[in-house]
Amino acid sequence: MFDDVTVIGAGRAGSAIAARLRERGVRTRENGALRLLCVPDRAIAEVARSIEPGPWVAHVSGGTPLAALSPHIRRFSVHPLQTLTATGGPGQLDGAWGAVTSETVEAHQRAMWLAETLGLRPFVLADDQRALYHAGASMASNFLVTLFRAAERLFEEAGAPPAALIPLMERTIENGFDLTGPIARGDWETVDRHVAALDGTDLEPLYTALAEATRQ
Amino acid sequence: MFDDVTVIGAGRAGSAIAARLRERGVRTRENGALRLLCVPDRAIAEVARSIEPGPWVAHVSGGTPLAALSPHIRRFSVHPLQTLTATGGPGQLDGAWGAVTSETVEAHQRAMWLAETLGLRPFVLADDQRALYHAGASMASNFLVTLFRAAERLFEEAGAPPAALIPLMERTIENGFDLTGPIARGDWETVDRHVAALDGTDLEPLYTALAEATRQ
Repeated sequence: MFDDVTVIGAGRAGSAIAARLRERGVRTRENGALRLLCVPDRAIAEVARSIEPGPWVAHVSGGTPLAALSPHIRRFSVHPLQTLTATGGPGQLDGAWGAVTSETVEAHQRAMWLAETLGLRPFVLADDQRALYHAGASMASNFLVTLFRAAERLFEEAGAPPAALIPLMERTIENGFDLTGPIARGDWETVDRHVAALDGTDLEPLYTALAEATRQ
Repeated sequence: MFDDVTVIGAGRAGSAIAARLRERGVRTRENGALRLLCVPDRAIAEVARSIEPGPWVAHVSGGTPLAALSPHIRRFSVHPLQTLTATGGPGQLDGAWGAVTSETVEAHQRAMWLAETLGLRPFVLADDQRALYHAGASMASNFLVTLFRAAERLFEEAGAPPAALIPLMERTIENGFDLTGPIARGDWETVDRHVAALDGTDLEPLYTALAEATRQ
Protein backbone atom coordinates (compact mmCIF):
# COMPACT_ATOMS: atom_id res chain seq x y z
CA MET A 1 0.00 0.00 0.00
CA PHE A 2 2.98 2.24 0.67
CA ASP A 3 6.18 1.42 -1.20
CA ASP A 4 8.23 3.85 0.84
CA VAL A 5 7.83 5.22 4.35
CA THR A 6 9.71 7.98 6.12
CA VAL A 7 10.12 6.95 9.76
CA ILE A 8 10.69 10.13 11.79
CA GLY A 9 12.30 9.45 15.16
CA ALA A 10 14.81 6.75 16.08
CA GLY A 11 13.81 5.98 19.67
CA ARG A 12 12.54 2.62 20.92
CA ALA A 13 9.44 2.60 18.71
CA GLY A 14 11.03 4.23 15.64
CA SER A 15 13.98 1.83 15.53
CA ALA A 16 11.86 -1.32 15.85
CA ILE A 17 9.31 -0.05 13.32
CA ALA A 18 11.88 1.02 10.69
CA ALA A 19 13.68 -2.32 11.00
CA ARG A 20 10.40 -4.25 10.65
CA LEU A 21 9.37 -2.26 7.55
CA ARG A 22 12.71 -3.04 5.89
CA GLU A 23 12.35 -6.71 6.84
CA ARG A 24 9.02 -6.71 5.02
CA GLY A 25 10.44 -5.11 1.89
CA VAL A 26 9.16 -1.57 2.47
CA ARG A 27 11.76 1.09 1.66
CA THR A 28 12.49 3.56 4.45
CA ARG A 29 13.74 6.83 2.98
CA GLU A 30 13.26 10.59 2.96
CA ASN A 31 10.13 12.05 1.32
CA GLY A 32 8.23 8.75 1.50
CA ALA A 33 4.56 8.47 0.60
CA LEU A 34 3.85 7.97 4.33
CA ARG A 35 5.49 10.08 7.02
CA LEU A 36 5.38 8.03 10.19
CA LEU A 37 5.96 10.10 13.34
CA CYS A 38 7.71 8.05 16.03
CA VAL A 39 8.61 11.09 18.13
CA PRO A 40 7.71 11.89 21.76
CA ASP A 41 4.00 12.73 22.22
CA ARG A 42 4.71 16.37 22.95
CA ALA A 43 6.65 16.80 19.68
CA ILE A 44 3.98 15.29 17.39
CA ALA A 45 2.03 18.49 16.63
CA GLU A 46 5.15 20.50 15.85
CA VAL A 47 6.72 17.84 13.63
CA ALA A 48 3.38 17.38 11.80
CA ARG A 49 3.13 21.11 11.10
CA SER A 50 6.65 21.08 9.66
CA ILE A 51 5.63 18.60 6.93
CA GLU A 52 4.40 20.11 3.64
CA PRO A 53 0.86 18.89 2.88
CA GLY A 54 0.69 16.08 0.35
CA PRO A 55 1.89 12.74 1.79
CA TRP A 56 -0.01 10.61 4.28
CA VAL A 57 0.97 11.40 7.90
CA ALA A 58 0.56 9.03 10.86
CA HIS A 59 1.71 8.66 14.44
CA VAL A 60 2.29 5.67 16.72
CA SER A 61 1.23 7.26 20.02
CA GLY A 62 -1.37 5.65 22.28
CA GLY A 63 -2.59 8.81 23.97
CA THR A 64 -2.41 11.47 21.26
CA PRO A 65 -5.54 12.36 19.22
CA LEU A 66 -5.43 12.51 15.43
CA ALA A 67 -6.00 16.29 15.58
CA ALA A 68 -2.34 16.60 16.60
CA LEU A 69 -1.50 15.68 13.00
CA SER A 70 -3.16 18.89 11.67
CA PRO A 71 -3.16 20.44 9.14
CA HIS A 72 -2.94 17.05 7.42
CA ILE A 73 -6.21 15.38 6.51
CA ARG A 74 -4.82 12.16 5.05
CA ARG A 75 -3.84 10.84 8.46
CA PHE A 76 -4.21 7.93 10.86
CA SER A 77 -2.48 6.30 13.82
CA VAL A 78 -1.27 2.83 14.73
CA HIS A 79 -0.22 2.32 18.35
CA PRO A 80 1.82 -0.83 19.03
CA LEU A 81 0.54 -1.94 22.45
CA GLN A 82 3.88 -3.13 23.72
CA THR A 83 6.71 -2.03 26.00
CA LEU A 84 9.85 -1.77 23.86
CA THR A 85 13.56 -1.72 24.56
CA ALA A 86 16.12 0.14 22.46
CA THR A 87 17.99 -3.04 21.56
CA GLY A 88 15.14 -5.54 21.21
CA GLY A 89 14.72 -5.12 17.44
CA PRO A 90 11.62 -5.66 15.31
CA GLY A 91 10.83 -9.07 16.85
CA GLN A 92 9.45 -7.14 19.82
CA LEU A 93 6.38 -6.30 17.73
CA ASP A 94 5.46 -9.97 17.16
CA GLY A 95 2.45 -11.03 19.16
CA ALA A 96 1.62 -7.49 20.24
CA TRP A 97 -1.69 -5.86 19.39
CA GLY A 98 -1.99 -2.56 17.54
CA ALA A 99 -4.63 0.14 18.07
CA VAL A 100 -5.74 1.50 14.71
CA THR A 101 -7.44 4.92 14.55
CA SER A 102 -8.68 6.65 11.41
CA GLU A 103 -11.43 8.94 10.14
CA THR A 104 -12.08 7.65 6.61
CA VAL A 105 -12.29 4.29 4.88
CA GLU A 106 -9.15 5.15 2.90
CA ALA A 107 -7.23 5.99 6.07
CA HIS A 108 -8.53 2.85 7.79
CA GLN A 109 -7.25 0.64 4.97
CA ARG A 110 -3.82 2.26 5.21
CA ALA A 111 -3.72 1.97 8.98
CA MET A 112 -4.63 -1.72 8.76
CA TRP A 113 -1.93 -2.26 6.15
CA LEU A 114 0.65 -0.63 8.42
CA ALA A 115 -0.43 -2.61 11.51
CA GLU A 116 -0.31 -5.89 9.61
CA THR A 117 2.99 -5.07 7.92
CA LEU A 118 4.47 -4.36 11.36
CA GLY A 119 3.28 -7.78 12.55
CA LEU A 120 0.68 -6.41 14.96
CA ARG A 121 -2.78 -7.81 15.64
CA PRO A 122 -4.93 -4.79 14.78
CA PHE A 123 -8.05 -3.56 16.54
CA VAL A 124 -10.01 -0.36 15.98
CA LEU A 125 -9.73 2.34 18.66
CA ALA A 126 -12.04 5.38 18.54
CA ASP A 127 -10.10 8.64 18.68
CA ASP A 128 -12.16 9.95 21.63
CA GLN A 129 -11.52 6.79 23.69
CA ARG A 130 -7.74 7.17 23.71
CA ALA A 131 -7.42 8.56 27.23
CA LEU A 132 -9.30 5.59 28.75
CA TYR A 133 -7.43 3.12 26.55
CA HIS A 134 -4.06 4.61 27.39
CA ALA A 135 -4.88 4.76 31.11
CA GLY A 136 -5.66 1.04 30.88
CA ALA A 137 -2.39 0.32 29.13
CA SER A 138 -0.46 2.28 31.79
CA MET A 139 -2.32 0.43 34.52
CA ALA A 140 -1.33 -2.93 33.02
CA SER A 141 2.28 -2.19 32.18
CA ASN A 142 3.69 0.80 34.09
CA PHE A 143 1.89 -0.04 37.31
CA LEU A 144 2.94 -3.67 37.00
CA VAL A 145 6.49 -2.33 37.36
CA THR A 146 5.36 -0.41 40.44
CA LEU A 147 3.81 -3.53 41.96
CA PHE A 148 6.97 -5.52 41.41
CA ARG A 149 9.17 -2.77 42.86
CA ALA A 150 6.95 -2.60 45.95
CA ALA A 151 6.92 -6.38 46.38
CA GLU A 152 10.68 -6.46 45.78
CA ARG A 153 11.23 -3.98 48.62
CA LEU A 154 9.08 -6.04 50.99
CA PHE A 155 10.95 -9.22 50.05
CA GLU A 156 14.32 -7.55 50.53
CA GLU A 157 13.24 -6.28 53.92
CA ALA A 158 11.98 -9.75 54.86
CA GLY A 159 15.23 -11.36 53.64
CA ALA A 160 13.50 -13.25 50.81
CA PRO A 161 14.86 -13.31 47.23
CA PRO A 162 12.92 -10.95 44.91
CA ALA A 163 13.62 -13.36 42.00
CA ALA A 164 11.13 -15.71 43.68
CA LEU A 165 8.37 -13.27 42.69
CA ILE A 166 8.86 -13.85 38.95
CA PRO A 167 7.43 -17.39 38.59
CA LEU A 168 4.55 -16.29 40.85
CA MET A 169 3.69 -13.30 38.64
CA GLU A 170 4.09 -15.27 35.41
CA ARG A 171 1.79 -18.02 36.66
CA THR A 172 -0.78 -15.47 37.83
CA ILE A 173 -1.03 -14.33 34.19
CA GLU A 174 -0.96 -17.90 32.79
CA ASN A 175 -3.79 -18.88 35.14
CA GLY A 176 -6.00 -16.20 33.61
CA PHE A 177 -5.78 -13.87 36.61
CA ASP A 178 -7.58 -16.29 38.90
CA LEU A 179 -7.58 -14.62 42.32
CA THR A 180 -6.09 -16.74 45.12
CA GLY A 181 -4.62 -15.70 48.49
CA PRO A 182 -6.12 -14.15 51.61
CA ILE A 183 -8.60 -11.73 49.99
CA ALA A 184 -10.02 -14.49 47.76
CA ARG A 185 -10.48 -16.60 50.92
CA GLY A 186 -12.08 -13.72 52.83
CA ASP A 187 -9.23 -14.01 55.34
CA TRP A 188 -9.23 -10.44 56.69
CA GLU A 189 -7.05 -11.36 59.69
CA THR A 190 -4.17 -12.00 57.29
CA VAL A 191 -4.88 -8.78 55.40
CA ASP A 192 -4.84 -6.91 58.72
CA ARG A 193 -1.47 -8.49 59.55
CA HIS A 194 -0.12 -7.24 56.21
CA VAL A 195 -1.36 -3.71 56.90
CA ALA A 196 0.16 -3.84 60.40
CA ALA A 197 3.51 -4.95 58.94
CA LEU A 198 3.44 -1.97 56.53
CA ASP A 199 2.24 0.48 59.18
CA GLY A 200 3.98 3.82 58.85
CA THR A 201 5.82 2.94 55.63
CA ASP A 202 5.09 4.69 52.32
CA LEU A 203 3.76 1.37 50.96
CA GLU A 204 0.80 1.32 53.34
CA PRO A 205 -1.46 3.67 51.29
CA LEU A 206 -0.67 1.69 48.12
CA TYR A 207 -1.42 -1.64 49.81
CA THR A 208 -4.65 -0.29 51.26
CA ALA A 209 -5.86 1.16 47.93
CA LEU A 210 -5.09 -2.13 46.18
CA ALA A 211 -6.67 -4.27 48.89
CA GLU A 212 -9.81 -2.13 48.74
CA ALA A 213 -9.98 -2.42 44.94
CA THR A 214 -9.41 -6.20 45.18
CA ARG A 215 -12.14 -6.60 47.80
CA GLN A 216 -14.60 -5.00 45.38
CA MET B 1 14.27 -38.26 55.08
CA PHE B 2 10.60 -39.12 55.55
CA ASP B 3 9.41 -42.39 54.05
CA ASP B 4 5.79 -41.57 54.67
CA VAL B 5 3.90 -38.32 54.98
CA THR B 6 0.34 -37.64 56.02
CA VAL B 7 -0.98 -34.80 53.90
CA ILE B 8 -3.87 -33.20 55.77
CA GLY B 9 -6.17 -31.15 53.52
CA ALA B 10 -7.03 -31.77 49.87
CA GLY B 11 -7.40 -28.21 48.58
CA ARG B 12 -5.25 -26.63 45.87
CA ALA B 13 -2.00 -26.95 47.82
CA GLY B 14 -2.73 -30.31 49.45
CA SER B 15 -3.67 -32.02 46.17
CA ALA B 16 -0.60 -30.81 44.28
CA ILE B 17 1.73 -31.61 47.19
CA ALA B 18 0.36 -35.13 47.81
CA ALA B 19 0.59 -35.93 44.08
CA ARG B 20 4.17 -34.64 43.91
CA LEU B 21 5.23 -36.68 46.97
CA ARG B 22 3.82 -39.86 45.41
CA GLU B 23 5.57 -39.02 42.11
CA ARG B 24 8.83 -38.87 44.05
CA GLY B 25 8.27 -42.22 45.75
CA VAL B 26 7.17 -40.92 49.15
CA ARG B 27 4.22 -42.82 50.57
CA THR B 28 1.22 -40.69 51.57
CA ARG B 29 -0.78 -42.44 54.26
CA GLU B 30 -2.32 -42.07 57.70
CA ASN B 31 -0.03 -41.82 60.76
CA GLY B 32 3.00 -40.79 58.68
CA ALA B 33 6.27 -39.70 60.26
CA LEU B 34 5.47 -36.18 59.03
CA ARG B 35 2.03 -34.62 59.34
CA LEU B 36 1.83 -31.93 56.69
CA LEU B 37 -0.97 -29.45 57.30
CA CYS B 38 -2.37 -28.13 54.00
CA VAL B 39 -5.49 -26.66 55.62
CA PRO B 40 -6.76 -23.05 55.60
CA ASP B 41 -4.61 -20.72 57.74
CA ARG B 42 -7.32 -20.30 60.34
CA ALA B 43 -7.62 -24.08 60.86
CA ILE B 44 -3.88 -24.75 61.37
CA ALA B 45 -3.75 -24.25 65.16
CA GLU B 46 -6.78 -26.43 65.80
CA VAL B 47 -5.65 -29.25 63.52
CA ALA B 48 -2.15 -29.13 65.06
CA ARG B 49 -3.61 -29.44 68.58
CA SER B 50 -5.60 -32.48 67.49
CA ILE B 51 -2.41 -34.41 66.59
CA GLU B 52 -0.89 -36.54 69.39
CA PRO B 53 2.70 -35.42 70.08
CA GLY B 54 5.35 -37.62 68.46
CA PRO B 55 5.56 -37.14 64.69
CA TRP B 56 7.01 -34.12 62.90
CA VAL B 57 4.38 -31.49 62.12
CA ALA B 58 4.65 -28.85 59.40
CA HIS B 59 2.46 -26.39 57.52
CA VAL B 60 2.60 -24.86 54.05
CA SER B 61 1.19 -21.43 54.88
CA GLY B 62 3.00 -18.22 53.94
CA GLY B 63 1.58 -15.99 56.65
CA THR B 64 1.23 -18.31 59.65
CA PRO B 65 3.96 -18.41 62.34
CA LEU B 66 5.41 -21.72 63.55
CA ALA B 67 3.83 -21.13 66.97
CA ALA B 68 0.51 -22.11 65.39
CA LEU B 69 1.87 -25.68 65.33
CA SER B 70 2.02 -25.83 69.14
CA PRO B 71 2.28 -27.92 71.23
CA HIS B 72 4.58 -29.66 68.74
CA ILE B 73 8.27 -28.85 68.96
CA ARG B 74 9.50 -30.94 66.04
CA ARG B 75 8.01 -28.56 63.51
CA PHE B 76 8.76 -26.44 60.44
CA SER B 77 7.07 -24.87 57.46
CA VAL B 78 7.57 -24.85 53.70
CA HIS B 79 5.52 -22.31 51.75
CA PRO B 80 5.32 -22.92 47.99
CA LEU B 81 5.41 -19.37 46.57
CA GLN B 82 2.98 -20.05 43.77
CA THR B 83 -0.65 -19.50 42.85
CA LEU B 84 -2.24 -22.92 42.38
CA THR B 85 -5.33 -24.22 40.65
CA ALA B 86 -7.31 -27.27 41.79
CA THR B 87 -6.72 -29.13 38.54
CA GLY B 88 -3.14 -28.10 37.69
CA GLY B 89 -1.45 -31.08 39.36
CA PRO B 90 2.05 -31.34 40.83
CA GLY B 91 3.74 -29.75 37.77
CA GLN B 92 2.52 -26.41 39.12
CA LEU B 93 5.27 -26.60 41.76
CA ASP B 94 8.07 -26.78 39.17
CA GLY B 95 10.02 -23.55 38.94
CA ALA B 96 8.38 -22.06 42.02
CA TRP B 97 10.38 -21.03 45.05
CA GLY B 98 9.68 -22.30 48.54
CA ALA B 99 10.05 -20.39 51.82
CA VAL B 100 11.59 -22.65 54.45
CA THR B 101 11.18 -21.76 58.14
CA SER B 102 12.54 -23.73 61.08
CA GLU B 103 13.96 -23.32 64.58
CA THR B 104 16.58 -26.08 64.79
CA VAL B 105 19.19 -27.61 62.50
CA GLU B 106 17.24 -30.86 62.49
CA ALA B 107 14.05 -29.09 61.46
CA HIS B 108 15.90 -27.09 58.82
CA GLN B 109 17.25 -30.26 57.21
CA ARG B 110 13.77 -31.73 57.10
CA ALA B 111 12.24 -28.56 55.69
CA MET B 112 14.93 -28.46 52.97
CA TRP B 113 14.27 -32.10 52.15
CA LEU B 114 10.56 -31.40 51.77
CA ALA B 115 11.08 -28.28 49.63
CA GLU B 116 13.46 -30.12 47.31
CA THR B 117 11.29 -33.22 47.14
CA LEU B 118 8.38 -31.02 46.11
CA GLY B 119 10.52 -29.54 43.32
CA LEU B 120 10.74 -26.07 44.89
CA ARG B 121 13.77 -23.76 44.95
CA PRO B 122 14.19 -23.29 48.71
CA PHE B 123 15.14 -20.12 50.54
CA VAL B 124 15.20 -19.44 54.27
CA LEU B 125 12.48 -17.19 55.69
CA ALA B 126 12.69 -15.96 59.30
CA ASP B 127 9.52 -16.69 61.24
CA ASP B 128 9.15 -13.06 62.35
CA GLN B 129 9.41 -11.75 58.76
CA ARG B 130 6.39 -13.66 57.50
CA ALA B 131 3.96 -10.74 57.50
CA LEU B 132 6.25 -8.61 55.30
CA TYR B 133 7.04 -11.56 53.06
CA HIS B 134 3.40 -12.51 52.68
CA ALA B 135 2.38 -8.88 52.05
CA GLY B 136 4.99 -8.83 49.25
CA ALA B 137 3.62 -12.05 47.77
CA SER B 138 0.07 -10.67 47.84
CA MET B 139 1.27 -7.44 46.25
CA ALA B 140 2.87 -9.39 43.40
CA SER B 141 0.14 -11.95 42.76
CA ASN B 142 -3.24 -10.90 44.15
CA PHE B 143 -2.84 -7.24 43.24
CA LEU B 144 -1.63 -8.20 39.78
CA VAL B 145 -5.11 -9.66 39.34
CA THR B 146 -6.55 -6.35 40.54
CA LEU B 147 -4.43 -4.38 38.07
CA PHE B 148 -5.55 -6.57 35.20
CA ARG B 149 -9.22 -6.34 36.19
CA ALA B 150 -8.94 -2.53 36.37
CA ALA B 151 -7.16 -2.31 33.00
CA GLU B 152 -9.68 -4.76 31.53
CA ARG B 153 -12.57 -2.50 32.58
CA LEU B 154 -10.89 0.55 31.02
CA PHE B 155 -10.28 -1.35 27.80
CA GLU B 156 -13.86 -2.60 27.66
CA GLU B 157 -15.14 0.92 28.20
CA ALA B 158 -12.80 2.21 25.48
CA GLY B 159 -13.90 -0.57 23.08
CA ALA B 160 -10.44 -2.18 23.04
CA PRO B 161 -9.92 -5.96 23.47
CA PRO B 162 -8.69 -6.86 26.99
CA ALA B 163 -6.75 -9.80 25.51
CA ALA B 164 -4.40 -7.19 24.03
CA LEU B 165 -3.15 -6.53 27.57
CA ILE B 166 -1.65 -10.00 27.98
CA PRO B 167 1.39 -9.73 25.65
CA LEU B 168 2.03 -6.27 27.15
CA MET B 169 2.07 -7.58 30.71
CA GLU B 170 4.12 -10.66 29.82
CA ARG B 171 6.74 -8.53 28.06
CA THR B 172 6.86 -6.09 31.00
CA ILE B 173 8.00 -9.04 33.14
CA GLU B 174 10.36 -10.43 30.47
CA ASN B 175 11.99 -7.00 30.12
CA GLY B 176 12.91 -7.07 33.81
CA PHE B 177 10.29 -4.50 34.84
CA ASP B 178 11.92 -1.72 32.85
CA LEU B 179 9.61 1.27 33.27
CA THR B 180 8.39 2.83 29.99
CA GLY B 181 5.35 5.01 29.27
CA PRO B 182 4.35 8.52 30.31
CA ILE B 183 5.65 8.51 33.91
CA ALA B 184 9.06 7.20 32.80
CA ARG B 185 9.17 10.05 30.26
CA GLY B 186 8.07 12.65 32.82
CA ASP B 187 5.02 13.32 30.64
CA TRP B 188 2.64 14.63 33.31
CA GLU B 189 0.19 16.03 30.73
CA THR B 190 -0.59 12.48 29.65
CA VAL B 191 -0.93 11.35 33.27
CA ASP B 192 -3.32 14.26 33.88
CA ARG B 193 -5.39 13.17 30.87
CA HIS B 194 -5.61 9.67 32.34
CA VAL B 195 -6.79 11.05 35.69
CA ALA B 196 -9.34 13.27 33.90
CA ALA B 197 -10.65 10.25 31.97
CA LEU B 198 -11.11 8.36 35.26
CA ASP B 199 -12.60 11.34 37.10
CA GLY B 200 -15.49 10.30 39.32
CA THR B 201 -15.04 6.56 38.75
CA ASP B 202 -14.01 4.18 41.53
CA LEU B 203 -10.73 3.55 39.65
CA GLU B 204 -9.48 7.11 40.15
CA PRO B 205 -8.14 6.61 43.73
CA LEU B 206 -6.39 3.40 42.62
CA TYR B 207 -4.83 5.09 39.60
CA THR B 208 -3.71 8.06 41.68
CA ALA B 209 -2.15 5.88 44.41
CA LEU B 210 -0.28 3.84 41.78
CA ALA B 211 0.85 6.90 39.81
CA GLU B 212 2.16 8.46 43.02
CA ALA B 213 4.04 5.28 43.97
CA THR B 214 5.45 5.04 40.42
CA ARG B 215 6.59 8.67 40.45
CA GLN B 216 8.63 7.93 43.56
